[in-house]
Amino acid sequence: MHASAQLLGRYLAELAQVTDEPGQLTRTFLSPAMRRANALVATWMRAAGLVTREDTVGNLIGRLEAPAAPHARTLLLGSHLDTVRNAGRFDGALGVLLPIVALAELRRRGVSLPFAVEVLGFSEEEGVRFASAYLGSKGYCGQLRAADLKLTDAAGLSVRAALETLTPTAQSFVLPRRAHAPRDLLGYVELHIEQGPVLEAKKLAVGVVSAIAGQTRAKLAFHGRAGHAGTTPMHLRRDALAGAAEFTLVAEALARRTPGLVATVGTMSVAPGAANVIPATATFSLDLRHPRDVVRRSALRQLRATVARIARRRHLTFTWTPTQDNAAVMCSPALTAALTASVRAVQGESLALPSGAGHDAVVLSALTPVAMVFVRSRAGLSHHPDEFSSPADIALALEVLIDFLARLARTHTS
Amino acid sequence: MHASAQLLGRYLAELAQVTDEPGQLTRTFLSPAMRRANALVATWMRAAGLVTREDTVGNLIGRLEAPAAPHARTLLLGSHLDTVRNAGRFDGALGVLLPIVALAELRRRGVSLPFAVEVLGFSEEEGVRFASAYLGSKGYCGQLRAADLKLTDAAGLSVRAALETLTPTAQSFVLPRRAHAPRDLLGYVELHIEQGPVLEAKKLAVGVVSAIAGQTRAKLAFHGRAGHAGTTPMHLRRDALAGAAEFTLVAEALARRTPGLVATVGTMSVAPGAANVIPATATFSLDLRHPRDVVRRSALRQLRATVARIARRRHLTFTWTPTQDNAAVMCSPALTAALTASVRAVQGESLALPSGAGHDAVVLSALTPVAMVFVRSRAGLSHHPDEFSSPADIALALEVLIDFLARLARTHTS
Repeated sequence: MHASAQLLGRYLAELAQVTDEPGQLTRTFLSPAMRRANALVATWMRAAGLVTREDTVGNLIGRLEAPAAPHARTLLLGSHLDTVRNAGRFDGALGVLLPIVALAELRRRGVSLPFAVEVLGFSEEEGVRFASAYLGSKGYCGQLRAADLKLTDAAGLSVRAALETLTPTAQSFVLPRRAHAPRDLLGYVELHIEQGPVLEAKKLAVGVVSAIAGQTRAKLAFHGRAGHAGTTPMHLRRDALAGAAEFTLVAEALARRTPGLVATVGTMSVAPGAANVIPATATFSLDLRHPRDVVRRSALRQLRATVARIARRRHLTFTWTPTQDNAAVMCSPALTAALTASVRAVQGESLALPSGAGHDAVVLSALTPVAMVFVRSRAGLSHHPDEFSSPADIALALEVLIDFLARLARTHTS
Repeated sequence: MHASAQLLGRYLAELAQVTDEPGQLTRTFLSPAMRRANALVATWMRAAGLVTREDTVGNLIGRLEAPAAPHARTLLLGSHLDTVRNAGRFDGALGVLLPIVALAELRRRGVSLPFAVEVLGFSEEEGVRFASAYLGSKGYCGQLRAADLKLTDAAGLSVRAALETLTPTAQSFVLPRRAHAPRDLLGYVELHIEQGPVLEAKKLAVGVVSAIAGQTRAKLAFHGRAGHAGTTPMHLRRDALAGAAEFTLVAEALARRTPGLVATVGTMSVAPGAANVIPATATFSLDLRHPRDVVRRSALRQLRATVARIARRRHLTFTWTPTQDNAAVMCSPALTAALTASVRAVQGESLALPSGAGHDAVVLSALTPVAMVFVRSRAGLSHHPDEFSSPADIALALEVLIDFLARLARTHTS
């Protein structure tokens, strides 16, 4: 076990060197570094006894058949291999590399599983290159649409054109069908760093995800009237930024008094944007999440009413442009119960916590039951080079996954 | 009189064609268009009987001696000939051209004044090119300092280098002394568009300025901690934008309940600035003005305390960087009384109003008593191509200045 945990640490370190930007870790969809990352991880998969292939959207797939049961169902394990710009080494990578090492360890112990396993390294989750997330898992699940192929990157290259570079013969890209029928699957289990402070606050290395929060994103703007900061009396102003400030505080207050709700205004820009000019326009984002859709939708209604009320009282106009709306995903009770039993066995106690962040499991949930394990993040930090999960926590997560696979094998055969 | 008002309208229209940017009106300090504007306005000055010269900072000066009194004191009249980018045609230009036409009209009537007059077209008031205002009037008043010469424009050219292009022999620039000793001056009178909505609301063409508001500008920032918008619970956040929003509303509320006070947050920028990241830093401006310094300073103290209180409660840090601090300028009681009498004579009633905007009169006030007349601005608009003062209002202002000059002549000789 100790050797396996060390191996996993080396894999994480080595993969972190595979980057498109020297001096920092950046791997985006179908980039040269992503090609190298897939090749490198494939060698580790094969060393663990997996048969590797790559699908037409660049997902790396390592498959281990059940030797005693050629028609057995398949358990999916994995996460994504792409990163944000200037990323840490754990987000995504941990959920791909840890299952490989777990399967290698089981093989070392001579354990064979009564079900097939696929370890998935998704080619796109972060949405960096095409400003659209989950392109890899959507491809795997047969959810890519023609509209997705028309998205373009900063250089103007389309998703379709980028995908067609994958095939040497430059054949026209065909939208992939789902990799499996639901009846052939046992479920999808994703290990991921928490990216939040809850496990750290509870002094726990790992926890089991109860649900992935539903998420609403919108781009808002208030429009008022520019004016001279010195000559326009307060009562004649139509200050768009003052309206946006009011909204920001109302959203914060609503989230503070609603358990589990988080609301974030993360961007704010002002036009004309001069110290001596009253803001005519304030443009800002809203990100609203809750593990229960009914709570999120109620909050959304209240905030929409707030925007209208602020606009009316301040003689502003407003726009509200929805940019994202994902329903919450409930994790599989059966898989979650098994994971919880494994966490209890290894850690002594378990903690159920919702995921505020979206993950590949959101997309996979349309295909098969999903479950997730979170690993403690130091200071809750992610999407940053200082992102850190300790070797001890990662070793414990590895034990949890091995225990879970053995537990699932027993359930399966009994 | 009618012909003079028409002439003034033609001058305004013709000068509005002199621009550095075809299709819109932009004239900045020492630019090619400013050189042409000075040459053009000088021809109009000479047509009115003035002797013209240009000083070493590019100010255009048209002087009319008192024929009967070669050692008489000098009345200064004027404003600035530079503009903001994409400006209107009235801001500044009106205060230079209207006195020229007034003096031409007096000459036509055969009136000679018992004092000398200088009409001043300042070369810089808007602060566009070097982000520092009043360079023209500071030069005229002997207030330019060595530090001013080191300011650089967007192309990296210094004020000193720009000024040295004015002299064909490229001599080293010498900081100018004040153009007059205070004892040789009667005062400075500036006509300017209001740039605010007060006269329009009162249905008056012109008003007399009681004082020019003192002004404090500062650049502020709150610093908190970035975090994932989905995974960081509300109570663990240190959201810099929420702090800035709170400050914006406190400043607005303070100004609303303090008569005459205006407070503006005109810029706001957020870092990292992504919809799904809690803002770590919010940077914004504060512009605070009041005609009475004691009120402005009290408001300033309250807002500084507010920033500290917000930072403490939200676990943020803050910076407060003063960028401007101008004391209020009281207008000369004697000149203002004479102007008020003229406004009453011409318009029927007068209105005393403070100026929320700064003007060249602020700088001139260190040299000589100052007074100002405001002309109604449609919708209070300025610094915009739609800036507009009607021909009728301008004609009325012309009558006011002629009446004032005649009134001052009577006072002076009596």
